[in-house]
Amino acid sequence: MVNMNDVAKLAKVSRGTVSNYINNVRIKEESRIRVDEAIKELGYIPNVAAREFKTNKSSNVVFILPTVWNPFFSELTYQLQIKLKQKGMKLLLCNSQDDYRAELEYLEIAQQNKVFGIISISYSNIMPYLTSETPYVAIERYYNDDIPYVTSDNEGGGKMAVDELIKKGCQKLLHVTRQVDGNNALIARKKGFEEACKEEKVDYEIFSPKTSSAVFHKDITLFLKEAFEKGQYFDGIFCATDRYASYCQDALMDMGIGIPEDVQLIGFDGSRSYATEELKISTIRQPVEKIAEEAVNLLIAVVNKDKQKTSKVLPVTFLDLKTTKSN
Amino acid sequence: MVNMNDVAKLAKVSRGTVSNYINNVRIKEESRIRVDEAIKELGYIPNVAAREFKTNKSSNVVFILPTVWNPFFSELTYQLQIKLKQKGMKLLLCNSQDDYRAELEYLEIAQQNKVFGIISISYSNIMPYLTSETPYVAIERYYNDDIPYVTSDNEGGGKMAVDELIKKGCQKLLHVTRQVDGNNALIARKKGFEEACKEEKVDYEIFSPKTSSAVFHKDITLFLKEAFEKGQYFDGIFCATDRYASYCQDALMDMGIGIPEDVQLIGFDGSRSYATEELKISTIRQPVEKIAEEAVNLLIAVVNKDKQKTSKVLPVTFLDLKTTKSN
Repeated sequence: MVNMNDVAKLAKVSRGTVSNYINNVRIKEESRIRVDEAIKELGYIPNVAAREFKTNKSSNVVFILPTVWNPFFSELTYQLQIKLKQKGMKLLLCNSQDDYRAELEYLEIAQQNKVFGIISISYSNIMPYLTSETPYVAIERYYNDDIPYVTSDNEGGGKMAVDELIKKGCQKLLHVTRQVDGNNALIARKKGFEEACKEEKVDYEIFSPKTSSAVFHKDITLFLKEAFEKGQYFDGIFCATDRYASYCQDALMDMGIGIPEDVQLIGFDGSRSYATEELKISTIRQPVEKIAEEAVNLLIAVVNKDKQKTSKVLPVTFLDLKTTKSN
Repeated sequence: MVNMNDVAKLAKVSRGTVSNYINNVRIKEESRIRVDEAIKELGYIPNVAAREFKTNKSSNVVFILPTVWNPFFSELTYQLQIKLKQKGMKLLLCNSQDDYRAELEYLEIAQQNKVFGIISISYSNIMPYLTSETPYVAIERYYNDDIPYVTSDNEGGGKMAVDELIKKGCQKLLHVTRQVDGNNALIARKKGFEEACKEEKVDYEIFSPKTSSAVFHKDITLFLKEAFEKGQYFDGIFCATDRYASYCQDALMDMGIGIPEDVQLIGFDGSRSYATEELKISTIRQPVEKIAEEAVNLLIAVVNKDKQKTSKVLPVTFLDLKTTKSN
């Protein structure tokens, strides 16, 4: 992308002169013409962030999320920063570590700093603390009709997983998830799974303990071991995240159960750890880039009081990979 | 609401000392610890706006890195944000996507915005563009003696890998890496590997093509296939990153070669995709949390013109996991 230095070089003026031109500070007429021509020739777009800084308006968008140290969240953060940059804005990162107090602290920081707005993935009930002065967009979370949000079609994804498993011959399904207060995404995936099972009249069970993320690997391993030892047989498992699916995969492999021959496995997210990673677990893919794009557009609409853009539920897709049978 | 006086009272220091602490002016270590504890206990949030107005300095630190969408970088970003927050500072995220021009653009944004400073992992030659007004700390990159940096002991890590492979009985070693201009870390790991092999008088080979990240998986697969078909046998492989090690693992498994029975494999980084992930590939672990902490401390020292804190080379450790034989 062309920057101020390129313009200065072509116009044969200092960088400061170009900066003055952009900020409407008077410069020599001769320089003004040369800068003008250079800007046109290079197709230079003045940096909105810089201009807003001068006008005492922040172009910083605070992004609050549990932790960037996770494939789905790091991909989302990456995409959000790229989309914001295209609009001349910057991303202030806030890992809340699921800590309610940390989130409130960031809200306060955001309000003190008069940021452009906040985009947040929060599983806490921070809604009462949102003041109308700070534009706010939620990802994955529905608070009420006043707080705009962008989310994947989590319920549709749960249904899609059931449909795929049935299509591939499964007769006894298991859903593996965790009970996390305020995590609407997990609730919706479970709802989609359960309703589709009832509709299709297929046998199903749900493993959904209220347990911490740190011990869930052990919980799953124990549950599957006991279930299969008791002769409780599942031939299709839908997990609420790819991570849970990888826990299931570990446990089943340790028990000598073949995937996908004996048990077929579908996760949720479809996020790579890095852009070129080859995914192996079949999964319901969230449209991460689209989520980022819509969140940014929605935030701008909120700031501009544009009522035409509203909350979005984005479609998911099925990735038919190595843990399901090919049709 | 808690204010500065409350903190001063609890910490048994003057209000001025608390103010100095908040503005990153050096105070006695003993006072620093007490203020730190008082702030945590009271849940005190410094008024950022007031501080920034007074010091005419932002508390934003720009972090430039190739991409947050990668286990090592997302862990580092996570840790950096946490360490900055402990000092009352915020992280502005900039994915440069290895794009030289994008990095320059961010430098410009940083300079325009009078940020507190810049912490950067860059493989480009942006050094000439660094102005003395913007405090700068490099991670993983040595430019010259004027630019402070924090890095893992990459050369020592290369040597450590060789020592471990020999200790575990390997006799013919291979190093797998990529030629990336300006990536000092990769160069140092290779140097450490090569020098240790010479010192230990062990047979070795280096696979180090100048290729893009996107096709390196294929390159490695082809190289290993041809080498083993020709009867060129390696029983110990040290890869410059865990990702390359996972490419080698895929290729060897496809060829029916046993790991660690036939070939032992050591990577570099030791970063999890998420905090609780169980790593499987034996690796040289970078002290990511320590890198983040030292980078923040060094940046503050640069701002305070404190010459006592200087560039740091931090020790790495060997994680003996599933791709090497137990001793």
